Amino acid sequence: MEPFPQHLLGIETLTRAQIDALLLLAAGYKRERREAREGNRDALDAHRRVLAGRTVVTLFFEASTRTRSSFEVAARSLGADVIALQKEGSSVSKGETLADTAKNLEAASADALVMRHPFSGAPHLVAREVRCPVINAGDGAHEHPTQALLDALSLREHLGDLTGKTIAIIGDLAHSRVARSNLHCLNKLGARVRVGGPATLIPMGIEKLGCTVHHTLAETIAGADAVMCLRIQQERIGDARLPSTRDYARRWGFTQAHLDSLAKHAVVMHPGPVNRGVEIVSEVLDGPRSLVMDQVDSGVAVRMAALALCLGRAGAKR
Amino acid sequence: MEPFPQHLLGIETLTRAQIDALLLLAAGYKRERREAREGNRDALDAHRRVLAGRTVVTLFFEASTRTRSSFEVAARSLGADVIALQKEGSSVSKGETLADTAKNLEAASADALVMRHPFSGAPHLVAREVRCPVINAGDGAHEHPTQALLDALSLREHLGDLTGKTIAIIGDLAHSRVARSNLHCLNKLGARVRVGGPATLIPMGIEKLGCTVHHTLAETIAGADAVMCLRIQQERIGDARLPSTRDYARRWGFTQAHLDSLAKHAVVMHPGPVNRGVEIVSEVLDGPRSLVMDQVDSGVAVRMAALALCLGRAGAKR
Amino acid sequence: MEPFPQHLLGIETLTRAQIDALLLLAAGYKRERREAREGNRDALDAHRRVLAGRTVVTLFFEASTRTRSSFEVAARSLGADVIALQKEGSSVSKGETLADTAKNLEAASADALVMRHPFSGAPHLVAREVRCPVINAGDGAHEHPTQALLDALSLREHLGDLTGKTIAIIGDLAHSRVARSNLHCLNKLGARVRVGGPATLIPMGIEKLGCTVHHTLAETIAGADAVMCLRIQQERIGDARLPSTRDYARRWGFTQAHLDSLAKHAVVMHPGPVNRGVEIVSEVLDGPRSLVMDQVDSGVAVRMAALALCLGRAGAKR
Repeated sequence: MEPFPQHLLGIETLTRAQIDALLLLAAGYKRERREAREGNRDALDAHRRVLAGRTVVTLFFEASTRTRSSFEVAARSLGADVIALQKEGSSVSKGETLADTAKNLEAASADALVMRHPFSGAPHLVAREVRCPVINAGDGAHEHPTQALLDALSLREHLGDLTGKTIAIIGDLAHSRVARSNLHCLNKLGARVRVGGPATLIPMGIEKLGCTVHHTLAETIAGADAVMCLRIQQERIGDARLPSTRDYARRWGFTQAHLDSLAKHAVVMHPGPVNRGVEIVSEVLDGPRSLVMDQVDSGVAVRMAALALCLGRAGAKR
Repeated sequence: MEPFPQHLLGIETLTRAQIDALLLLAAGYKRERREAREGNRDALDAHRRVLAGRTVVTLFFEASTRTRSSFEVAARSLGADVIALQKEGSSVSKGETLADTAKNLEAASADALVMRHPFSGAPHLVAREVRCPVINAGDGAHEHPTQALLDALSLREHLGDLTGKTIAIIGDLAHSRVARSNLHCLNKLGARVRVGGPATLIPMGIEKLGCTVHHTLAETIAGADAVMCLRIQQERIGDARLPSTRDYARRWGFTQAHLDSLAKHAVVMHPGPVNRGVEIVSEVLDGPRSLVMDQVDSGVAVRMAALALCLGRAGAKR
Repeated sequence: MEPFPQHLLGIETLTRAQIDALLLLAAGYKRERREAREGNRDALDAHRRVLAGRTVVTLFFEASTRTRSSFEVAARSLGADVIALQKEGSSVSKGETLADTAKNLEAASADALVMRHPFSGAPHLVAREVRCPVINAGDGAHEHPTQALLDALSLREHLGDLTGKTIAIIGDLAHSRVARSNLHCLNKLGARVRVGGPATLIPMGIEKLGCTVHHTLAETIAGADAVMCLRIQQERIGDARLPSTRDYARRWGFTQAHLDSLAKHAVVMHPGPVNRGVEIVSEVLDGPRSLVMDQVDSGVAVRMAALALCLGRAGAKR
């Protein structure tokens, strides 16, 4: 069987078989997490030997609650130690190059580096300099592979095989690494992708990534089996391309009426953190067809799978 | 027997029996911590199975060294993983609601949330939204229940049963969650409480919480078996209600002469951090009748007990 | 045999025998770390019982990636829990004295305090107030003992016994705790030390610490078996004593030509973080005679040894 790559830098360079292997492993972890919540911790506790004695370093150059803690939980669930480093208080502010910081962490003990950085390609640069696996936890507007994989895990569990399914992505396509990774992932899994959002936030030529572009919310979601609402970044609001959140909410906010217009099985997703009442109304977000909390659960499972596969330990433990 | 509540949000809603149960468990942990320091770690090490595989998330929206690290030590002593999140670098700064942050942490894996927040009632709001236990580590000027419980543990160990004992609380009663929680706790344990401080920092009607109000330090501590000096918050100093620390120290600072005026068994307490020479002089603080270091020791034991009881694991381990 | 001191505050007060004992223990840990990387984790994993159930608190009042994470990895490698506290978000900003912060941490559970502070002597002050071991991770311009010890470990592994060997130290001797600790350590190990740097950054009377002073880079490194380039702190640049990095690099930057002028076995070191092209050119830094990555590896091993010895656990585990 095709091996999993050493680094998880993006979805673009993964094969369908590699994605399937990761999602299969993650689905098992997710089931075991559910069993643990119901009182049977045996399977989950057994995984604490997988990365025992290993150290996973999270190196975040952008603020993050959910992605960082999700990776931290995932790593600890496999028994690893976690060292969490953030931009503040790091040597990077002392003029050291990013590659030198990474090489130092590896020499000190990092068995894997989980990295978020505002510049596209930063994790790729680091991956060329170190021997340990590098997992991209978001690089600029480029990729956020574990987000796309967790979305795929939740989607598959609710819709089954994604071949021929229609997924609509709504919002700021121009600055979203979540959207880019999802476009790659959904296409590889056989889905049809429709995108829509303010014209100023839809990049020219995005069709080449495998989607159709639409100009109203109603048109974008027509026939969708799932709708992904992207987060509107606060720093975009008020500039020439997005005058106000109120204006965005009125034209692109997902409401109960939109949900009612879809097939009964259709679901709604959001990578979080949500601006309630802007990208999506609370009634839908908290309703039975929202996968938002399920996505968080999938996130830990997918990150466990990514760490186990990149560190070559997925087989050893089974 | 009456079960312990799922959440520990305040002392006001605890029964005497619940307080007694927690203090009994905590006293055992404290004894085992002492034995460990003396070289016998067996009992303490056995507790590392109590919360093995569980994750405790500390979510602090105010700076804290001692309370946060005390909870972290307590959780790790029971074998839990700890994820520490602070206001800086969290999604809360991205516009997400507090309830959504908490629900996300729970979905990712929090088995308990320990939370400090500048707004009174914030932990109660979160407790309504999640299934996992929420422990209030201080909410605005409302409650700080584990502080009152650790004070009660230290007091009982030094004074025995608190029924009929006289406890004096000195300082800023208006803004102190420590004082509010202690008023509830000491009254439930049968003590008589006397309070005193600058008139501008004694709220109208505080007698209804179960105390007498006094207007000089000498009068407040008359007949006291224990004196609790509250911390003067730096942000209060210089406003209309508290002109200077020197003025406060002169009128309300606890000195050796004050201690000498009390019964021989009387003790002095402070929740920390102490402004030496303001609330209390160093001679007393570092003297043999100061419980300040003992309070810190009690703090870890009480937080171990709170985590074990809220997570329903106190029985399982014995 | 002479016992190891309870605290590791500086090299100045260590004996040769104590240094040798620590380096011997560290060399073993380093070998086991290498074996673990090559797949045999048994020896390293066995050490996880050495400090099991103990808590190491890192208390850093200056930003640090490498030293803090190196200590954290070392402590966890011995099975300890680690509580990491930084200046931000600590009680120190609330007016508490440093000694009180330390005593509180000890009362809460610290079995060892690892401390970095901008003021020389701060760890010594703390050591007088607590019973637990204090390890100095850098105090002002005074000492940084584990840096000197890791340098000695790397040097010995590459040069053998240092008696009579010549070590050149280049750069800002006036503000470097690394240089001070190395002067003490190298002299105790029998090496001859030569120092050189901009005249404004060489303190008067430094010869008394055991070195000769030189005024050009070529002269300083003449006959050296190893060259240590010190880091130029950004905050020094632009003041009267150091006009520009370009000027420093031209006069004191270590190049391939300098390396070629040395004996074939001579090596180059830097404590990091490196300003590439300033203290040392990339060709040398990344070349086969650079010990920079080896120093990082030695760092974890030396800190494991320091923790094990100060906590009196080195013998118990062997």
